[in-house]
Amino acid sequence: MVATIMSGKLLSDELNEEMKLEVIKLKEKNVTPGLVVVLVGEDSASQTYVRNKEKRANTLGIHSVVEKYPEKMTEMELLRVIDRLNKDDHFHGILVQLPLPKHIDSTKILNAIRPEKDVDGFHPINMGKLVIGQPERIPCTPYGIMKLLQRYEIDIEGKNAVVIGRSNIVGKPMAQLLLMKNATVTIAHSKTKNLAAVAKEADILIVAIGRGHMITKDFVKPGAVVIDVGMNRDENGKLIGDVKSDEVQEVAGHLTPVPKGVGPMTITMLMYQTIESAKELLN
Amino acid sequence: MVATIMSGKLLSDELNEEMKLEVIKLKEKNVTPGLVVVLVGEDSASQTYVRNKEKRANTLGIHSVVEKYPEKMTEMELLRVIDRLNKDDHFHGILVQLPLPKHIDSTKILNAIRPEKDVDGFHPINMGKLVIGQPERIPCTPYGIMKLLQRYEIDIEGKNAVVIGRSNIVGKPMAQLLLMKNATVTIAHSKTKNLAAVAKEADILIVAIGRGHMITKDFVKPGAVVIDVGMNRDENGKLIGDVKSDEVQEVAGHLTPVPKGVGPMTITMLMYQTIESAKELLN
Repeated sequence: MVATIMSGKLLSDELNEEMKLEVIKLKEKNVTPGLVVVLVGEDSASQTYVRNKEKRANTLGIHSVVEKYPEKMTEMELLRVIDRLNKDDHFHGILVQLPLPKHIDSTKILNAIRPEKDVDGFHPINMGKLVIGQPERIPCTPYGIMKLLQRYEIDIEGKNAVVIGRSNIVGKPMAQLLLMKNATVTIAHSKTKNLAAVAKEADILIVAIGRGHMITKDFVKPGAVVIDVGMNRDENGKLIGDVKSDEVQEVAGHLTPVPKGVGPMTITMLMYQTIESAKELLN
Repeated sequence: MVATIMSGKLLSDELNEEMKLEVIKLKEKNVTPGLVVVLVGEDSASQTYVRNKEKRANTLGIHSVVEKYPEKMTEMELLRVIDRLNKDDHFHGILVQLPLPKHIDSTKILNAIRPEKDVDGFHPINMGKLVIGQPERIPCTPYGIMKLLQRYEIDIEGKNAVVIGRSNIVGKPMAQLLLMKNATVTIAHSKTKNLAAVAKEADILIVAIGRGHMITKDFVKPGAVVIDVGMNRDENGKLIGDVKSDEVQEVAGHLTPVPKGVGPMTITMLMYQTIESAKELLN
């Protein structure tokens, strides 16, 4: 068997076309979706991410602003910025680029974002609403994975789904989304014993560990759908996933590549939720 | 093997003694923990529950008030009651007895309770904080189960835990609590295929299905810890659990009985969180 490759790039392109039309329709109603990205400090990876988000927003016709602040900004100053942006009707989405400098409490900052504008889906009330089955904003990476599963017509109900990794931004919300679609969901992690055996029970295997090429074919049930959330650099600086794709693609039924798999979907869902947030203003 | 019986009754008695002392200490600091229970309509089961809560609160020295309202009360009127109680410093815990009459949106009411006073742990922001690993108020039944596991020195880290049932008040928060203690957690439910096989993988099996005696010994791994959340009536009106205890106790290592297992712990944790909430006022 050779796995069907699930292209996040392709689906992103499709969704971009739909979103462009949505934005045009909103503008006809005098609403321009707006996204503000707050960047504190000079972290170079963060700068690249922020640039990519700005570029994508511009392509879609979303009003996009990046507010840059110096590394030595205080927590109180940043809270005042958030407060101003919460009230600014031009922005339907507020994104604070992480990581923040160490002297600023990220939790406090994220909790200060108005939940409706929390297009990252990180606010505890948005997490709570997701868990109790009334989602409003959803963390973008697991949301993008659900869109990919849907696009490739993967049956979820009654399937065994195993999520490896339990971060607040991927693993935990991922488990909730799969549960909402009636999968039997297992959350595995660094303390899980016999991880390969647990993973091998999965019809749908979501891997978000952050260790390059850790998942070999011994972790994969023949025919399984394997979603690789990893973004690691190998010794040559090449971008690689958590899944050893060359051997896993011989076993899996479906596989997301790295790059061009889950990665592009995360930024796509960020834009998607910004537009959703703008639409809600019309109601 | 005959299972060790995990007595929620016994642990409740122990915790009651501790709580009585806590309340005395608080009163010395001029704080009397207060719990208000809001009861709408004439549901007879609800009246019994409310009476039991009031009785327990009184035993512990907690200031306890039951506010009763007629079935035909409007949603707006109930929201005004909640608003008043949110502001009333005599009450550190507010509990709205469910179910509410059909013309009132329970979600809207529960979301209106000030999160600090949400001693039931049902507010979405409390659920969200639990999920992201910063719990403040925790749904009482799973919280009580964690206390029972701790009391009986059950090792959780690295163990396979299976939670059957995915309600917002038991299954989902239960899964999060077990995950926080480093179990590998599976959530199973009515759409799970081959439930017996899934359950039989569990070192710790939490059963919250609501179907009397459904879990036979074929669902239980020898030596497993089995927690029975069920409260059902058999054809003779006798209270029975979801677990067929006569045969499961021959296989399991530990088992909670019904009654006197999980049941008493729920009300105990309600009191516990009311006291915690009062303590926070001192800080």
